[in-house]
Amino acid sequence: MAGVGGLGLLVGSAGVGSVLAESGMWRGRTAPRSNEQIPFHGDVQAGIVTPSQNFVCFAAFDLITTRAEDLPVLLRKWTDAAARMTEGRPVGDENSNPNLPPADTGEAFGLSPSKLTFTFGVGPALFDSRFGLAAKRPSALGELPRFPGDQLRAEWCGGDIGVQVCADDLQVAFHAVRNLARIARGTAVLRWTQEGFQRTAAASGSGDTPRNLLGFKDGTANPDTKDAKLMNQVVWVQPSDEQGWMRGGSYMVVRRIRIRVEVWDRTHLNEQEATFGRHRDSGAPLGAKSEFDPVQLDAKTAAGDPVIPVNAHVRIARGDGSMQILRRSYSYSSGIDRQTGQLDAGLLFISYQRDPFKQFVPMQQRLAKMDALNEYISHVGSAVFACFPGVQPGGYIGEGLF
Amino acid sequence: MAGVGGLGLLVGSAGVGSVLAESGMWRGRTAPRSNEQIPFHGDVQAGIVTPSQNFVCFAAFDLITTRAEDLPVLLRKWTDAAARMTEGRPVGDENSNPNLPPADTGEAFGLSPSKLTFTFGVGPALFDSRFGLAAKRPSALGELPRFPGDQLRAEWCGGDIGVQVCADDLQVAFHAVRNLARIARGTAVLRWTQEGFQRTAAASGSGDTPRNLLGFKDGTANPDTKDAKLMNQVVWVQPSDEQGWMRGGSYMVVRRIRIRVEVWDRTHLNEQEATFGRHRDSGAPLGAKSEFDPVQLDAKTAAGDPVIPVNAHVRIARGDGSMQILRRSYSYSSGIDRQTGQLDAGLLFISYQRDPFKQFVPMQQRLAKMDALNEYISHVGSAVFACFPGVQPGGYIGEGLF
Ligand code: HEM
Ligand code: HEM
Repeated sequence: MAGVGGLGLLVGSAGVGSVLAESGMWRGRTAPRSNEQIPFHGDVQAGIVTPSQNFVCFAAFDLITTRAEDLPVLLRKWTDAAARMTEGRPVGDENSNPNLPPADTGEAFGLSPSKLTFTFGVGPALFDSRFGLAAKRPSALGELPRFPGDQLRAEWCGGDIGVQVCADDLQVAFHAVRNLARIARGTAVLRWTQEGFQRTAAASGSGDTPRNLLGFKDGTANPDTKDAKLMNQVVWVQPSDEQGWMRGGSYMVVRRIRIRVEVWDRTHLNEQEATFGRHRDSGAPLGAKSEFDPVQLDAKTAAGDPVIPVNAHVRIARGDGSMQILRRSYSYSSGIDRQTGQLDAGLLFISYQRDPFKQFVPMQQRLAKMDALNEYISHVGSAVFACFPGVQPGGYIGEGLF
Repeated sequence: MAGVGGLGLLVGSAGVGSVLAESGMWRGRTAPRSNEQIPFHGDVQAGIVTPSQNFVCFAAFDLITTRAEDLPVLLRKWTDAAARMTEGRPVGDENSNPNLPPADTGEAFGLSPSKLTFTFGVGPALFDSRFGLAAKRPSALGELPRFPGDQLRAEWCGGDIGVQVCADDLQVAFHAVRNLARIARGTAVLRWTQEGFQRTAAASGSGDTPRNLLGFKDGTANPDTKDAKLMNQVVWVQPSDEQGWMRGGSYMVVRRIRIRVEVWDRTHLNEQEATFGRHRDSGAPLGAKSEFDPVQLDAKTAAGDPVIPVNAHVRIARGDGSMQILRRSYSYSSGIDRQTGQLDAGLLFISYQRDPFKQFVPMQQRLAKMDALNEYISHVGSAVFACFPGVQPGGYIGEGLF
């Protein structure tokens, strides 16, 4: 947002944080436009109730340092870099000495911030014996159980630290992850990464619910992120949940779910719709007309069968309706899987919740057992992270941990 | 483009081909907008001199059939599907029978065509003994030689058929490749795929030359695609080159080039600029001021050294300037490489030329031997394809082969 001699304006949903533009920063480069910026600072982290951007670069890091004091140093550096990047500024002050590596890797120069957000969290592994943090482990953070049918591969699991980087531009998101990795050198290394996409807003024109790779609208029954009370119920850790540093935070679950698209593509439309319990074209629940019509789980056909089959994905996911999650998933496509010779494509499922063990886990236990969709998918990666509350200017992410 | 009862308008650079909209096709779906469409039909294939879209999905297929007659059938089906998809229509006629799999996989429903293009070619392997096509092999098509330093992996090499699919939307491009694979079932299978990106036009605002993952502007010295005479010299196979079906075609070279970004990011700016022979920020040649200033290979410093180092990438690539290629590369990022634990990111180098052995091969031989950039890159994938001339309505791609 730093204009050449100009003053940036912060525009965003959460309106917190007002960092002054450092003019002259871009020395003759095209100044990034300021109308595509989501504030980094705030009571809660961005990237959770933020409307989904077009792309995600998810990254899991492992700490390689053994010194506990390196961790807050890293988090401070990351905070500084992330705040700058969300404003479209390079990660470090321009050094005028060409006999040094450039402060920023450069591939995002001249690009708009593209609604870049960072969402940082820490995994259960961080609270082992290495850093003396065991006592700080939030009660709701633990390794997820093994679910029936899981085909997890170590290469897509876990991580001491997880970062969800989202932006409307993939190059901007990639640049951010790469620079986090670069800043971490000597302290942490990338463990796994996964890019994901949805249709770009430009291609869609309208604000239509995006479709996943099965061709169905995905996100319809998500809780309304503009309903602050509901978000407090579903997403944000409340004072009553947790004593300490997690208040105002949230738990992120990441599942890399392979879709056997080749099998799906040979399935009859009827069966596809029965699998989800929704119509493909309209997104309407079976038995209804429009996408946002209520899902009537009790409706019966003339023959007395349930209109929405007993093993339909939406029925099993909903359960008794007492527990919701906020889904923020992206499609992924990563070439051909060498083990099967088929497309390695699917859903990078991401959900946020107040308590993964009360919300995600029982839901996934039901799904793993009964979901009709299981015929077409397999969970190949998994991770869970305790995402910090927001940070104010001058502070740093995760400071409550220390 | 097919509107609900409306009439689509073809808008594009090459103005050939005028397929009438089939109204009612989209049965109540949002009609794709028609202003984002590049005509499929024409004297030459789209996707070569077409200005680069934001994304590529490259796909290489292997034929699994042994019956020669299956090949033209496949190419005909692909032609039909590709023409429809570039208009934003589903790949097949909507069937009203829900007891069949849907004709189209659906994830692009409601999206604009997003400047979707298909560029089809055939690899040298197709002309082996399987299909009786040996006599049809164009003289300029052969396996590329092994270059010094090549670290090719079979999983990213070769293919009987290569398709470059480009679009401004990654979901639209993915949908296209997936549907080609689906149509090919029983005849051909995917051998390898690679997605690539550049900054989106939306993030850049201006028509600035995009930057690669090394932070440098990439494409500056590309020949001008609007100069038809130059394109005849550099890109399009001329009647004097080839007797038969390749006239008006072009050869596509694909190299998957890994970049060791971690090493690059520790390199001084001076050395980075010396590696390319250009300035990072401006893109200007060393010793010049602006991006499009001439590259002065003879200029000397006060001390008598060449201003553009003897092993600079632009110097070695240019050679004596007698041979050019048209580059149409994209960045890629594919997670972590399991063998090295480092980012598997780099350049999906794609170039078009009249004769790969007169243009690409000598250039890459020089580069492989002397390019300063070699310290930071390794070629891990490789393929070459003879891309058909354009197809007129009623015809099909590659028809000249049969
Ligand atoms: C590849 C895997 C998956 C796909 C393709 C998928 C797709 C869908 C689709 C198309 C819908 C209906 C539209 C909507 O309300 O968004 C849906 C609903 C839902 N899904 Fe999934 N889903 C997947 C995995 C999961 C997982 C792992 C969970 C959680 C454990 C989950 C939880 C939900 C929930 C809570 C709903 C809303 C149900 C309701 O109340 O109506 N999904 N999903
Ligand atoms: C990761 C690999 C590569 C990278 C990052 C890269 C990057 C660049 C950059 C930044 C430029 C200067 C700006 C421009 O004119 O576009 C350039 C020029 C050029 N590159 Fe590459 N390049 C790579 C591989 C190759 C390969 C494999 C070839 C062909 C065999 C090639 C051929 C050329 C040519 C012909 C020029 C223009 C030289 C001139 O006439 O000024 N490059 N490249």
